[in-house]
Order: sequence, then structure tokens, then C-alpha cells
Amino acid sequence: MKKFNFTITHKGSGLARAGVIETPHGDIQTPAFVVVGTKANVKGVTPEMLKDIDVQVVLANTYHLYLQPGDELVRDAGGFPKFMNWDGPTMTDSGGFQVFSLGAAFGSKVSKVAKGDETEVVKDGQQLCQIDEDGVTFKSHIDGSMHRMTPERSMEIQWNLGADMIFAFDECTSPLAPHEYQKEALERTHRWAERSLKRHNELDQDNMQALFGVVQGGRFEDLRRLSAKTLGAMDFDGFGIGGSFNKEDMATAVAWVNEELPEDKPRHLLGIGEPLDLFGAVENGCDLFDCVTPTRHARHGLLYTLDGPINLMNSTYKTDHSPLDEETGSKVGKQYTKAYLAHLYRSKEMLAGTLGSVHNIYFMVKLVEGMREALLNDTWDQYKETFLERFYKK
Amino acid sequence: MKKFNFTITHKGSGLARAGVIETPHGDIQTPAFVVVGTKANVKGVTPEMLKDIDVQVVLANTYHLYLQPGDELVRDAGGFPKFMNWDGPTMTDSGGFQVFSLGAAFGSKVSKVAKGDETEVVKDGQQLCQIDEDGVTFKSHIDGSMHRMTPERSMEIQWNLGADMIFAFDECTSPLAPHEYQKEALERTHRWAERSLKRHNELDQDNMQALFGVVQGGRFEDLRRLSAKTLGAMDFDGFGIGGSFNKEDMATAVAWVNEELPEDKPRHLLGIGEPLDLFGAVENGCDLFDCVTPTRHARHGLLYTLDGPINLMNSTYKTDHSPLDEETGSKVGKQYTKAYLAHLYRSKEMLAGTLGSVHNIYFMVKLVEGMREALLNDTWDQYKETFLERFYKK
Repeated sequence: MKKFNFTITHKGSGLARAGVIETPHGDIQTPAFVVVGTKANVKGVTPEMLKDIDVQVVLANTYHLYLQPGDELVRDAGGFPKFMNWDGPTMTDSGGFQVFSLGAAFGSKVSKVAKGDETEVVKDGQQLCQIDEDGVTFKSHIDGSMHRMTPERSMEIQWNLGADMIFAFDECTSPLAPHEYQKEALERTHRWAERSLKRHNELDQDNMQALFGVVQGGRFEDLRRLSAKTLGAMDFDGFGIGGSFNKEDMATAVAWVNEELPEDKPRHLLGIGEPLDLFGAVENGCDLFDCVTPTRHARHGLLYTLDGPINLMNSTYKTDHSPLDEETGSKVGKQYTKAYLAHLYRSKEMLAGTLGSVHNIYFMVKLVEGMREALLNDTWDQYKETFLERFYKK
Repeated sequence: MKKFNFTITHKGSGLARAGVIETPHGDIQTPAFVVVGTKANVKGVTPEMLKDIDVQVVLANTYHLYLQPGDELVRDAGGFPKFMNWDGPTMTDSGGFQVFSLGAAFGSKVSKVAKGDETEVVKDGQQLCQIDEDGVTFKSHIDGSMHRMTPERSMEIQWNLGADMIFAFDECTSPLAPHEYQKEALERTHRWAERSLKRHNELDQDNMQALFGVVQGGRFEDLRRLSAKTLGAMDFDGFGIGGSFNKEDMATAVAWVNEELPEDKPRHLLGIGEPLDLFGAVENGCDLFDCVTPTRHARHGLLYTLDGPINLMNSTYKTDHSPLDEETGSKVGKQYTKAYLAHLYRSKEMLAGTLGSVHNIYFMVKLVEGMREALLNDTWDQYKETFLERFYKK
């Protein structure tokens, strides 16, 4: 029995499409915004609240759960979805991004999205991981203990964590790495993809988990296309688009990849969540995205409105008794004033992070739902233009 | 039009009673556990969650809201209940307890409940407040600025904060203060009660707020009875029982007071929330109680079960995949395992405090609801014995 299925229900212009991913824990209407629940919980937000704001999918981090509380404990709990009391579709990432965070990016100011004028890697820390052909050795950020991750271990850990959709083990490189290194890493990632597939097929004989291969290649068109073609020919259930980008041409890089990937499998743009980037990703054929930015912003007082993000710590909001947002349908936005939320943030009340996260997640979920509607109704250009004009004007 | 009303619907043995307090924002079935929302929010818990666990009343702290964000800002927001999006009945305290915290208790290890063998005040800090006949001068714990509180100011501030039920300004003394000082403070508190009533009647000509007088008198029977008699003769809508007690004879002290207070007005035991004390309070004629302990405990990993509180940081719970509590009807207790909650506490996830608080508040609300049922069904002794035997056996 096939437990996963992806159906494209409507095609937009270019590579854009709307569809449905069937999983053992329910259907996902795509494009969809995937919420990040790093350690088997979305910070400050209950699963009930996630349901209430129409969240479809939760993604947990393999690296974090492996270290704490440990994948075997999570397996004994029935997998991370049951552990956290979330009965909808789920994903775990491969741990590859943490290799980047602990390695190439550690102690530096490099993010996975580079601005066009960045050319040098400024580092002031030591790398916490070493990569070799077989896998990665890394130091725990919690207690400094040494650990080993390989494609096989990643599959075993993700099997224990028990998400519906999982990712092949990959190396996420720095956007500033030269072509030569990107190519070397890419070829290794492809070999790791084969090994991930093999170990996954041994473990998951009943097709309980869909395995996504992760396309890398940094900012280079030849490498991105090569990676998409190579992985696209393997027997994956879907694809992640990982790694680093130029801020200015992320959409272009996504198009390179999606022109090569098989059309009939879902595509997840990993770790990207800026509204502008989401429009570019959907236009260029992506179906899923996850990002911690909306919840991280929320914990720091940056809340989304159709007129762009507002910083509740700004003194102007102390006495602004108007609702946070009456336009998007956000319950938090309607029920709480800017002055109240500003009070909670200034008083460092934990409820601030909770209400803010619920609002920002709602905002992102509805933004992407709106993209889906616009695709289905062939009103994409209008939807995009209306949204971007207001959101980025400020 | 009278907007407040208290009806005793059933009498138990001794001073115990069940009743209904009518307020402009709905009825309160008593006895009832009042939840503390210090700065116009219950830490980590949304008003929607409070409704969901049948919380009837929220109490905010006058001292805290006066300092941050300021009572005038809260007035402009329409009062603290509207500010925090809570549409049920509400209270604010008088600020008198903070006078105690900043004064007699500051920098010492004295709590308002003394064990029988405590006789000395150990102090290692300076008092942050000075009391005189007219009122109190105190230093803000936030920025060190100087402030002045008088009975009149307390009424004005509480008028601005806009709760349904408010308290006369009082001095909460140390349980270790001698009779002579207790008597002096008590007489001052009675004069402050008269002044509070006068200012309240000037402000609240439409009876929007019910004013409760606060009985003091420490551990001394003569003073407790004197205070109850004196305040009971004044035109208050209800009474708070404040101040300090001996742990061992709190119920006795409460009985002294309630034997003197008029029977037909509600009585609120201020800041007491230990289950054993609640049984003693209800048996001896109290109708309301508030306490931060259940939520404070919850934030530190101490969660309530019928077999007593359990500390989720205890290593035994790391691998305990049984639900936290399947007996009381707590949704959190049923939906989350001890191992999961232990993981959240160990990972310092803010969701731990939220789920724990919802559970502990539910536990207290249902415990007191159970007391009400037991009074109505004349099964008090059985209910009390069954609960206390399990809860305190461990």
C-alpha cells in the first residue's frame, strides 16, 4: 500500500503549482508553510493552538532531538509527533544544516543566505565539526560530548523520531565557499543520498516514511542543475532544496533546480521564510517551506502586519490601543491591542512570545494559503503585487 | 441598580457555605479559586485557556500594574480586564501585601505564613518602604524611583484598573511582629479602611466596583476578632482576610475572623493556596482564595497529581511514558506524558511553563469545585479525607 501520494491539482504560470500531499496523518494542501518545532515543540505554542490557526505540518530537528532527549527515548514514546501530541503530518530535517551551523558557519557571521557583495568569511570561532567521506564528527553544543553522524545514522535516528517525511543526510555549505569546494561537497552529498536511500529502504519496509533527497550546489547554476538531475534520477519520494543562496537570486536558483527535478514529486525549500522569498519559491515550483523566523521574530517583539513587521518595543506602541491586526483574521491580532502586547514584551512576560508566535505563524500560514488560492483562481500576479507593495513599502 | 450580590445557596457544618457572587461580568460559584494575573496576564496562559479550564475570576496586582505599564494607561485601555482580553469577573488587590514584601519582609526569609517555631526576624537587606499615618512611601523594584501610596491613591489606582472587586488599602504585617506593633498597624489599617471607603464612594457612584475591607491582626485572636468586628460594621461589599498566619493554626485564625464578620458578605482569603489550607478555609467560612503558588510551581516543574506534587526534574520521569494525570480530567494531564513534560522542562522550553500552569490551575480550580460539590451534597468529610489522604501521604 502506498501511504504517500502527491497530486498536482492546478498549474500556474511557469513552474508554479498547487497540489495535495497525502500522508498517513492527513493531507497537506500545497503550497504550505511548515512550522518548526525544533525540540518536539513549537516554542510557547500548544498543538491545539497550531490546529486553531490551520497549521498543516510540523517539522522537528533531527540534530536537536538526537542530543536531547535522544532518538531512542523518542522512539519509545511512539515517535516525536505522538510525544508532542501532534496528530497531523510531520517532518524531520536531516541534521545537515546543523553541520553547517557547527562547521562552516560556526563563530562567523555567515548565514545561509548571502548578500551579493559578501565575499569573505569572517571567523572568530573554532569549528565544532569535521566532515569526512563517511560522515561527520561533531561536538554537542549542550555538553561538549563528541558524536558521529553518517547517512545511515541519520536514517536510523529519523526512523526513531518517526516523522511522515524525512530528509537524506546532506552537507549544507557556506554561500561563500568556492566552486571547487561546493562541487566536492555536492558529490559527497550525492553519495550520501544513495546511502540514505539504501538504509531507509532497509528500515522502512512498509513505506511509513517518505524520504526526500536534498539538492545542494550553493550559488552555482551548473552545480544546482547537476544536483537536481542526479538526485531526481534516484528513487526519492520528494526533494528538499537546501543549502546556501544569494539573497538577490534565490528565486533564480530555485528555478534552476525545479526545472530539473521530476515534476510529479513535492519540493520543499528548506529553512526559507521571508515573504518575498516565498513568492519567488512558489512561482518557481516549490510546494513546502519551513522557517523559524516567524517565531523567533515573535519572541523578540517583531510582529507581522500587512503593512510589514512592526517592532512592539518601539515606544510608539506603548499607548497605541488599536488592535494589532484586524485585517488578516488573526484572532490574536483582533483580540489584543498593540499597547497590551507592548506591555507584555516590555514586562518580559512569557505570554508575549506565545501570543506573538501564534500571530506570526497564522500570518505566514494564511499568506501561503492565499498563494494557493491565487494559483487556483489564476489571480497570482494581483495577489503578489498587492501583498508585496504594502508589506515592503515601509 | 445593585450590580453585586452574594447569595448563600447551601450551608455546610460550622461556618462552611456554598454560594453565588453576581458581578457585572458574570456569576462566581463559590467557593472558588481565583487565578493570579499579576501584570494583567497569567504567566504563559491565554484567557482562552483559562476559560477552557473553567477559571471564574482573575486577580491582578495593583502595585505591579501601577508601576508597569501605569494605571492611567490601563484606564485608557478600558481597564485591566479589557486590556488583557478577559471578559469574566476580576479583582485587584490593594497593594498592601507589596508593602509587606518591600518592608517588613524585604531581604529577610520571612513569609506571610510562619512556622510555629519561628521567633526571630533574620534580615540582611534594607527595607524599601516607609509607613506613616497617611500612607506608604516606597521604592520601585523596577527602577528605584520613589512612589507614594495612600488609601485614596489605592482607590484611584484600582478605579483606573477597573476590576469588579477591589480591596481597601491595608498594611500586611510580619507574622513575627509583636502584639504591640500588630495592634498599632491594625488600628492604622482600620483608619485606612474608612478613608478607602470614602474615596471609593466618591469615585464609584454607579456601583461598578465592589469594595472589600481587609481584616488584619496577625496571629493574635483578640486583634483578629477586633479587626473583623470593626471592619464588619463598615459598609463594605465583602471582606479580604489578609496578613500573616501561623502555618499550624491558619484555619483557627480564619474561624476567629469569620465568626465575627457579617455572614451575608463574601470573604476572600488573600494569597493562600496550599490545598490543606483551602480545606481549612472553606470549612471555616471562606468563599474565595487566590495564590500564585500553582503557577510558580508549574514554571519550576512541580506539577500536581492526586498523589501529591511531582517534580518533573526528577530523573525518574525522563523515561516515564505514562500520562501526567488521567484522573482529574485535566486535558494537559491526559494528553502529555511525564517523559515529554520532563523533556520540555529539561530543555528549558517555555511551553513547559505554559502546559504546567494550565494543568496546575485546572487542578486547583477542580479541587475547589469539588469542595463546592461536597458542600452541596453534604459529603464534605468524605471528600476532604479522600483527597488529603492521597495528596499528603507521599
